[in-house]
Amino acid sequence: MAITHPSFGTLDDNRIIFFDTTLRDGEQSPGFSMNIEEKLRMAEALAELGVDVIEAGFAIASPGDFESVQSIARKFSKDGPVVASLSRANAADINASGEALKPAARKRVHIVLATSDLHMRVKLRMSRDEVLEAIERSVTLGRSHAEDVEWSAEDGSRTDPDFLCRCVETAIKAGATTINIPDTVGYSMPEDMARIFRDLRNRVPGIEKVVLSAHNHNDLGMAVANTVAAIQAGVRQIESTINGIGERAGNASLEEVAMALRTRHDALPFKTGITTQRILKTSRLLATITGFDVQPNKAIVGRNAFAHESGIHQDGVLKDASTYEIMTPESVGWSTNSLVLGKHSGRAAFRDKLKALGYGDLGDNAVNDAFRRFKELADRKKVVYDEDVAALVDDEVVRGNDRVKLAGLTVATGLGVRPMATLALEVDGERRDGMATGDGAVDATFIAIRQAFPHDAALKLFAVQSVTGGTDAQARVTVRLEEGGKLVDGQGADTDTIVAAARAYVHALNKLLAKRERTAPPEFQKALSA
Amino acid sequence: MAITHPSFGTLDDNRIIFFDTTLRDGEQSPGFSMNIEEKLRMAEALAELGVDVIEAGFAIASPGDFESVQSIARKFSKDGPVVASLSRANAADINASGEALKPAARKRVHIVLATSDLHMRVKLRMSRDEVLEAIERSVTLGRSHAEDVEWSAEDGSRTDPDFLCRCVETAIKAGATTINIPDTVGYSMPEDMARIFRDLRNRVPGIEKVVLSAHNHNDLGMAVANTVAAIQAGVRQIESTINGIGERAGNASLEEVAMALRTRHDALPFKTGITTQRILKTSRLLATITGFDVQPNKAIVGRNAFAHESGIHQDGVLKDASTYEIMTPESVGWSTNSLVLGKHSGRAAFRDKLKALGYGDLGDNAVNDAFRRFKELADRKKVVYDEDVAALVDDEVVRGNDRVKLAGLTVATGLGVRPMATLALEVDGERRDGMATGDGAVDATFIAIRQAFPHDAALKLFAVQSVTGGTDAQARVTVRLEEGGKLVDGQGADTDTIVAAARAYVHALNKLLAKRERTAPPEFQKALSA
Repeated sequence: MAITHPSFGTLDDNRIIFFDTTLRDGEQSPGFSMNIEEKLRMAEALAELGVDVIEAGFAIASPGDFESVQSIARKFSKDGPVVASLSRANAADINASGEALKPAARKRVHIVLATSDLHMRVKLRMSRDEVLEAIERSVTLGRSHAEDVEWSAEDGSRTDPDFLCRCVETAIKAGATTINIPDTVGYSMPEDMARIFRDLRNRVPGIEKVVLSAHNHNDLGMAVANTVAAIQAGVRQIESTINGIGERAGNASLEEVAMALRTRHDALPFKTGITTQRILKTSRLLATITGFDVQPNKAIVGRNAFAHESGIHQDGVLKDASTYEIMTPESVGWSTNSLVLGKHSGRAAFRDKLKALGYGDLGDNAVNDAFRRFKELADRKKVVYDEDVAALVDDEVVRGNDRVKLAGLTVATGLGVRPMATLALEVDGERRDGMATGDGAVDATFIAIRQAFPHDAALKLFAVQSVTGGTDAQARVTVRLEEGGKLVDGQGADTDTIVAAARAYVHALNKLLAKRERTAPPEFQKALSA
Repeated sequence: MAITHPSFGTLDDNRIIFFDTTLRDGEQSPGFSMNIEEKLRMAEALAELGVDVIEAGFAIASPGDFESVQSIARKFSKDGPVVASLSRANAADINASGEALKPAARKRVHIVLATSDLHMRVKLRMSRDEVLEAIERSVTLGRSHAEDVEWSAEDGSRTDPDFLCRCVETAIKAGATTINIPDTVGYSMPEDMARIFRDLRNRVPGIEKVVLSAHNHNDLGMAVANTVAAIQAGVRQIESTINGIGERAGNASLEEVAMALRTRHDALPFKTGITTQRILKTSRLLATITGFDVQPNKAIVGRNAFAHESGIHQDGVLKDASTYEIMTPESVGWSTNSLVLGKHSGRAAFRDKLKALGYGDLGDNAVNDAFRRFKELADRKKVVYDEDVAALVDDEVVRGNDRVKLAGLTVATGLGVRPMATLALEVDGERRDGMATGDGAVDATFIAIRQAFPHDAALKLFAVQSVTGGTDAQARVTVRLEEGGKLVDGQGADTDTIVAAARAYVHALNKLLAKRERTAPPEFQKALSA
């Protein structure tokens, strides 16, 4: 029984739509905020991965969110993903989403309203009738902006089943084309999913004309199993995020759902648009942008996901990989290709490597800048791994036109001495010096930066990761600054941790300056006054 | 229908036994190896958490494993947990387990043998009849060492159902008291669990006299849901690990299973021995020991698990926490108590804080050493958080009697200069100097250490975490060294990353020296020749 959907046309009954909310639910979790350039980079990677819908943000939330949604909407053609913006069930929110999505070739207005007794009473302070009216009104307004409207029952999994049926019926009648029942608080078990969706399918008139959707949180560790159970109960859109990021314990992780469908195709005979070979690359890009690595035992994308240490397992894997591997590492993008680069590698080999790593579309200037940094790195590091090259290119691409540059740095530290840093910045071409002592070498460096270029931003995060193993590994540092409620993340990579930290701080500073200059786009003001 | 079990007596039908394999399956994943002192520390924490069975290791694997099992066996009285050792289905393995477990007040011999066609053909090269004979022989031998014998069907979830019934029947007849069906490769879905265990309960004679057990891996992200489904299908022992560590994508995470049972008591009316308030502390201890933090969005124990950033959610939580929280942060040990320590805090306040953090049982020497380091830290850091104190005490307790000490260190680095380190070590009281340049400040420091104290160990891991946020945060560095197949991890904490790195390296070096001195205990030799 095929559904005809405004964005997808006639949908095969076994086609699962991937709705990615990395840039909305994922981005709104503490520490995972991204700026507009980073969101555009992720959106591009998500499109290449093959997600069907990208939730680009929550247009009304801030001018930055509005602009992000608008830029992502502008980015894709008719062949690209549907771009969605979240809205609460009021006119200002929905008009902001509609306005931000205007440039989109394919667009979806997403409207959410809580339906559980607890949320209606405590948060909304609305009666059931008021909620039903708001659904009708908001979905109707949504349809004036887009043919493709998704309606979500916030806290739907804890909603009275009879009332949920009435809400869904109202949303369908008003023109919703996708109905999403989020497990907002991560409370459900697989059997709950089965009950909720079977109930809706049995009881709500018109349910056969819309796409049902599940949005599961992982508070009890069951988001993926709940998503699979929802599919078995008739859901054809699943909402997930890369690396499972999102509010609290996060959302169902895209890579785990996609690989469960692929690996268990025997029991789950569904098809998706996901190119699983791009999963690892997308996961790593998100880690680079946010500064948070997944843990080593993260399924699919963790460093240990395909590693075998115990003698028993190694023996089995050498005899036949299928004894302990239910999917191949290559199927999700782990490369067994060990062609590494060194200081004698030329521009052609570097360009080939970039292509192999999926950076074939870089412009000449970006390639030249990356090559120059690669040669600097190769001088200091015997072997340059794929991860090093990826880190370096990601760094180069993310970095914009910097007003502040690190021109010089000297640091002295040790046991029983107070660490000291002297440094020089170039600000709009003008040289400024700073000198400071601090609690640590990094602390002294940061204080010296503040001296050379005074500013009020607070340091919110300082994180160090090594990009590859070994003593001569590159350190990748993330620095998060906050000023007037705005958060920016800066990244820096170097074989020296202190230099990487200084680069990361200066990078964050440049982003902050860019944010200061940016003002709300006029369309945002217009949407607000609509 | 109650079961009478040799270790637990009469078991209520709704009592779930927690079998913890953090020290065996968890410890054997790459990068998570622990030394004997660390294992003892974890075993103590697991006992305080309330796990029923601690799998202490795989006695035959190495003299170190044998000794760990033996030490943990010795540690607990009749009131403590049952201590288990893993063995393959051969006499040498089982005798090693039996020997290592001899000092235990309560002990279990755990025997594993693969039963899937794939594993029997490729790995074991045994026929079905040979496997049945091996089960009978090995479980009988196991019973000569312990009344409590667990038999596990490796790759059980991919085993022919008829043959699995015959294997389980054979194991029960030979005297197994717990029957475990591992989902070794993480391939199952909740419905598979239901089918497997219902089938066994319907078909195998004597099944009602034993405890059924599930051991689930997370390769497709469904380990927790599978474990819950197994309980619903009649399983009364669940095997899990802290933070979900373990082979590849890890095991079902103890904290998620325990909190699913507690939070969804409406649908899962079971009881456990877990004191959930100790979950966070146990998780953090493991992170400290292994040097691997969980990711921020890890359920229950991640930094964001109870954090709310989006405006909608914050608003809801302020009105009524239950709008977005299905369990309280306090129920798993997150403290909302913000009493922090500073440089003016005295010994009494420090001791109170230690008690509040669960370190009430520390000896006077350990408290004094920790207090001295706390004062040093408070001099450099305005606010000392709970996490800082915990890191400092864990560090103090884990550290042994060091032969190598860091006596002095000076480092200079910067942009465009080659980093340089000069340092002094005290080795068995004798001063040795080193001076080197390197690719980074840390690299130069490590080369200088090798110069002052020559050794062949290879650096396998260098990881930096900040213990708390802010510029004056302590950096915690983990250094992993390898020598002749032996891995050791060293940790160091300091406000200066370079000093922390030097401390961590020296710590690892001390562990390596301790390992070199240790020889196989005589009982191990005896067990091998049995």
